[in-house]
Amino acid sequence: MQNQATMQPPALAAPANGKPAGVAAAVTTTLDPKLIAPFVSSIRAVFSTMVGVETTVQRPYLKNDETHSFAVSSIIGFSGQVVGSVTLSFQEETAKKLVAKFAGAELGIHDPDFADAVGELANMVAGAAKKDLGGTASITVPSVVIGSGHNIARLRDVPCVVVPCTSPLGDFTVEVSIKRV
Amino acid sequence: MQNQATMQPPALAAPANGKPAGVAAAVTTTLDPKLIAPFVSSIRAVFSTMVGVETTVQRPYLKNDETHSFAVSSIIGFSGQVVGSVTLSFQEETAKKLVAKFAGAELGIHDPDFADAVGELANMVAGAAKKDLGGTASITVPSVVIGSGHNIARLRDVPCVVVPCTSPLGDFTVEVSIKRV
Repeated sequence: MQNQATMQPPALAAPANGKPAGVAAAVTTTLDPKLIAPFVSSIRAVFSTMVGVETTVQRPYLKNDETHSFAVSSIIGFSGQVVGSVTLSFQEETAKKLVAKFAGAELGIHDPDFADAVGELANMVAGAAKKDLGGTASITVPSVVIGSGHNIARLRDVPCVVVPCTSPLGDFTVEVSIKRV
Repeated sequence: MQNQATMQPPALAAPANGKPAGVAAAVTTTLDPKLIAPFVSSIRAVFSTMVGVETTVQRPYLKNDETHSFAVSSIIGFSGQVVGSVTLSFQEETAKKLVAKFAGAELGIHDPDFADAVGELANMVAGAAKKDLGGTASITVPSVVIGSGHNIARLRDVPCVVVPCTSPLGDFTVEVSIKRV
């Protein structure tokens, strides 16, 4: 069984430490850093170009607990030679501010336009990253989860890396849970 | 713009009425019933065979609000000639009972085995339905959402049909939000 973390955050000078505390041995913790770098680039590009907000990507880390919870998540699935999902997660106020800037209108979180806008953000991040992942992969349309206090559970056989992002409109998180097959 | 509901629930004798009350005109409400029948069959088969629970599928209806919320959801994405997602959603107690019966052990909702079990249920339902959908489609690994009071938002350009299911261990919901491309 693989239980040694080999991820090295591609966007940061410091290498990942070998084995984050608290990772259950049974949960997959091996990740190809080449699978994370495209998302770091696409997050910055999409939020800068499409939303008009400069984001700073903090050091990615292996998700090892379920304590973080969010009010809005937008999930894009991958299938083909890369499988898994990427999820953009926000607290409510941050999501509303980012959507207002992106869509040009203030929307409530239960407005269908709100879900479409949040879904489109995830679609652009995943779509821009996909072409740099290597191999062929298809991405799904987004699934948007609304409800304060939810989280996306890890699965045993797909590693999950949390990419923390900060922006002037609030912080958010991108969880990249993919692997090559 | 399509705003006439043409869905006819395949599992029930009574035809669907033409246009459910409360469906916003801007939300896609046209659905090919051939996309729902495979899920009705696969839900019954998977829960009967793999969980050992006989489910009754109630009349499917077009999702027209976001008022239902759940504690556990398992989402499988589709890409290829069929795009969208299918989501199994449960209240906490029902999910725990079904997982206990399926996995043979009582698990808390934050146990990684719990997410894997709920994910596998959705994977089997989607996988069994896929082969009867026609065309070629890929399905993703599951994304499992944990957190009471969440719902999966509708997207404007993919219709969403709610398939209500009852079982001796509790009721649950399958939301089928797919279209042919």
